[in-house]
Amino acid sequence: MSLIRVTIWNEFVHERNNPAVARIYPLGIHETLAAALRSFPGVDVCTTTLSDPEQGLSQDMLVNTDVLLYWGHAAHDDVTEQTVSRLHTRVLDGMGLIVLHSGHWSKIFKRLMGTSCALRYREAGERERVWNVNPGHPIAEGIGDYIELPESEMYGEPFGIPTPDEQVFVSWFQGGEVFRGGNCWTRGSGRIFYFSPGHELYPIYHTPQIQRVIYNAAKWARPQGRRAEVPLHVPVENAPEKIQARGPVMHDPSGKLLSEQP
Amino acid sequence: MSLIRVTIWNEFVHERNNPAVARIYPLGIHETLAAALRSFPGVDVCTTTLSDPEQGLSQDMLVNTDVLLYWGHAAHDDVTEQTVSRLHTRVLDGMGLIVLHSGHWSKIFKRLMGTSCALRYREAGERERVWNVNPGHPIAEGIGDYIELPESEMYGEPFGIPTPDEQVFVSWFQGGEVFRGGNCWTRGSGRIFYFSPGHELYPIYHTPQIQRVIYNAAKWARPQGRRAEVPLHVPVENAPEKIQARGPVMHDPSGKLLSEQP
Amino acid sequence: MSLIRVTIWNEFVHERNNPAVARIYPLGIHETLAAALRSFPGVDVCTTTLSDPEQGLSQDMLVNTDVLLYWGHAAHDDVTEQTVSRLHTRVLDGMGLIVLHSGHWSKIFKRLMGTSCALRYREAGERERVWNVNPGHPIAEGIGDYIELPESEMYGEPFGIPTPDEQVFVSWFQGGEVFRGGNCWTRGSGRIFYFSPGHELYPIYHTPQIQRVIYNAAKWARPQGRRAEVPLHVPVENAPEKIQARGPVMHDPSGKLLSEQP
Amino acid sequence: MSLIRVTIWNEFVHERNNPAVARIYPLGIHETLAAALRSFPGVDVCTTTLSDPEQGLSQDMLVNTDVLLYWGHAAHDDVTEQTVSRLHTRVLDGMGLIVLHSGHWSKIFKRLMGTSCALRYREAGERERVWNVNPGHPIAEGIGDYIELPESEMYGEPFGIPTPDEQVFVSWFQGGEVFRGGNCWTRGSGRIFYFSPGHELYPIYHTPQIQRVIYNAAKWARPQGRRAEVPLHVPVENAPEKIQARGPVMHDPSGKLLSEQP
Repeated sequence: MSLIRVTIWNEFVHERNNPAVARIYPLGIHETLAAALRSFPGVDVCTTTLSDPEQGLSQDMLVNTDVLLYWGHAAHDDVTEQTVSRLHTRVLDGMGLIVLHSGHWSKIFKRLMGTSCALRYREAGERERVWNVNPGHPIAEGIGDYIELPESEMYGEPFGIPTPDEQVFVSWFQGGEVFRGGNCWTRGSGRIFYFSPGHELYPIYHTPQIQRVIYNAAKWARPQGRRAEVPLHVPVENAPEKIQARGPVMHDPSGKLLSEQP
Repeated sequence: MSLIRVTIWNEFVHERNNPAVARIYPLGIHETLAAALRSFPGVDVCTTTLSDPEQGLSQDMLVNTDVLLYWGHAAHDDVTEQTVSRLHTRVLDGMGLIVLHSGHWSKIFKRLMGTSCALRYREAGERERVWNVNPGHPIAEGIGDYIELPESEMYGEPFGIPTPDEQVFVSWFQGGEVFRGGNCWTRGSGRIFYFSPGHELYPIYHTPQIQRVIYNAAKWARPQGRRAEVPLHVPVENAPEKIQARGPVMHDPSGKLLSEQP
Repeated sequence: MSLIRVTIWNEFVHERNNPAVARIYPLGIHETLAAALRSFPGVDVCTTTLSDPEQGLSQDMLVNTDVLLYWGHAAHDDVTEQTVSRLHTRVLDGMGLIVLHSGHWSKIFKRLMGTSCALRYREAGERERVWNVNPGHPIAEGIGDYIELPESEMYGEPFGIPTPDEQVFVSWFQGGEVFRGGNCWTRGSGRIFYFSPGHELYPIYHTPQIQRVIYNAAKWARPQGRRAEVPLHVPVENAPEKIQARGPVMHDPSGKLLSEQP
Repeated sequence: MSLIRVTIWNEFVHERNNPAVARIYPLGIHETLAAALRSFPGVDVCTTTLSDPEQGLSQDMLVNTDVLLYWGHAAHDDVTEQTVSRLHTRVLDGMGLIVLHSGHWSKIFKRLMGTSCALRYREAGERERVWNVNPGHPIAEGIGDYIELPESEMYGEPFGIPTPDEQVFVSWFQGGEVFRGGNCWTRGSGRIFYFSPGHELYPIYHTPQIQRVIYNAAKWARPQGRRAEVPLHVPVENAPEKIQARGPVMHDPSGKLLSEQP
């Protein structure tokens, strides 16, 4: 089986502006994740950031990516509609997308979900326990009953998402909340995984079990089949069953809407 | 139980520009549907069109609507992003939405689905048989094994939608295609039903069984609970369990992202 | 709208054998639940127990029930296959079923789910917080952010169920676990709700918010349409489209499998 | 990646009793399928039938099978409850299961689905067109818009199944029906695919595109993770968070239900 081409996209803002974050991720979250993924077999990893040409998400980059990891927080608004549309189309065409932590509030995640993607949150350095509720799922491979994070940001319910196609993880928080933090969807031909741990002030992406989940997710999200669907006009003579056209029409023989006389 | 406040929105273009359509729907598709729904108990029906103030979808109108029917085709592009956003928010807040026929390609449906919403199509006046695949579903109440439409436009698979939460109807076409044409989703607090029959050149909305489905859908889609979710910052002292804040923070005590020094 | 005919079935074992349980539910869990439901409008409530004729689940009882509540624990094995089959058929035909607490391990729940229905558990009188993750759902109507139970039995993940059609509640436990404890499914024409709180040693069914959830669930689970499906042979002359039979057959004209010559 | 160990189970009745079937499948459906699968890479295929020891489904056989294909029709009742339970447990533990054609009515499929699994049917040698409604799905890999079968048995809606997790194929029939004939579910750790084509009187399993779907399904259904869930008592001292037990208990320290005094 060929290598999975993983691209890690990071807005790369906090690591340059906030010394506390820079201490944990001196080269950026993307480079920590890249080094982690490269320690696993079968992946070809590259990184890109918001300040790169075409916001780091050029058509050429996307076409040559099997699975995209996406981390953003402070700069969601800076991602242009054009970039989001290019990315959206590529996901529907089959590229896997792994949305991390505060990426829940990114334009691309909201566009794919169609919902608010809102949640409740609190920063208190509290304990999080990421429960594996689906041990048979490939994204949970090698993960035990739960992953314990000694310090984490609380993300809590209700989480404004469509019902996940598959639920893999649900988190418990010391402060009393729960959160559906490991969720799978398919949209078009693309597989999407949202994974909530990853607050920039804690070394969460240095945690081996978290790295393992992200690697598993990359394997799960790799493209599975062909491009899902395109609008298609079927001329009458191409109908699978022989039929005769009858009655008036709104479209010309090519399927284009006829102009009307007001 | 109080009356269901149904608003029927129609772009109302073909009926004014195309004599063949005008003969079938002289007052517009919306008025035919309104008259049909008024023949059922428990609904309070009004109509609105694209050329009305605020594109017929003002905040005041939306807040006073329990279920919106949506028919559009030629003028999808004319609906502004602002109108779509207003409508989108109201659906997530609980208003039911019934998207009819070519509304599959509307901005609001695409935004709620997050997918291409593409399909294949053909105009040949062919026979369609709308199979009831879910006789226990409230939207199928009073509908027999199938609804037969002697002349219809073909809409065929693959249909670029997320897996429906519930499948109620699947159509058979004389020319050899099939189509998932009666589909339910919930997004936020809002229920959404897509129903494919309704090509403007055939008197489909004059068909009693089609009217019955739409009435059933209006009953099913009425708001069920309260507004689904909003982003919410939880101060540490409001955590359900008593915890002590520790470590650095990215947000001020009100939950606003702190500015950083580049 | 007509009254919802609710039947509350209880195995009624612990309340007769265990003084600690009897103090909380002197007349049985079923009578506490019945009194609670009768305080709400629109329901007609009766009770029945395992020691009643036909194990309290006669065909006559089932046919006259819209929604059945089911509480069992110690006597799951005593419910006969015949009783389970009668109950199963009635659910598929449209009767709503609300399975409470340890009913997760009942024969009827396992038969409807098709999975293990296993979970982890612990009795420590610990705090449970039942989070409302779906505020727009009718079963969450009138319920705030969460229901707090000062003393509860822990039920924890992984829970061996099919992905719920809709997730309404997820529980947090003081001892560190989470649990998907409020789950909706449709099977055939019947709606099923599993609700986990209800350990017999704590006065959980005396809690108004828990009573409200169960009432909401009864309204949600009432029969919606007609009987879902039956096997049906379609003679060639009854095909919706005119076709000619051709080739050999395995069935006689009535659809019965022909006997073969070994 | 290691070979997928595929076992093909066939009741093997019609091929021995019915000369018309024997002409199409002289060695049995299982051997035709086995030869077809062996033409693809990465699979290790064996066959077994109802008349083999332990009904061809011994524990040893199951433990050494990654994906089981299941074809049955006339002898569903002959499969014992014990065999079904063994098979059921193995699916929940992670073995993939591909249920073919009249296997929709088998005990194992009914047990996994929890529903009636009923459908409508007709034998008329009519044309079936199996539409690919999910081109991005791995089971549709290499399949075009549809597979056309010149002669097939009609299986029609409503089909008494739970909503599929993923819909891959929907069939069109010449006689006017539609059918959800390619459906995916996950139950426990096991993946299940139902594929409807395969009437024994037509050479459907000799069709390359049908063989390809079954091969794709075997790849998709191979075990993904570990055993899904088992009931588990958690002693108080093993709770992830430190808690103190309080109040009365129903279970002894090992989690066994205490006997009660009537």
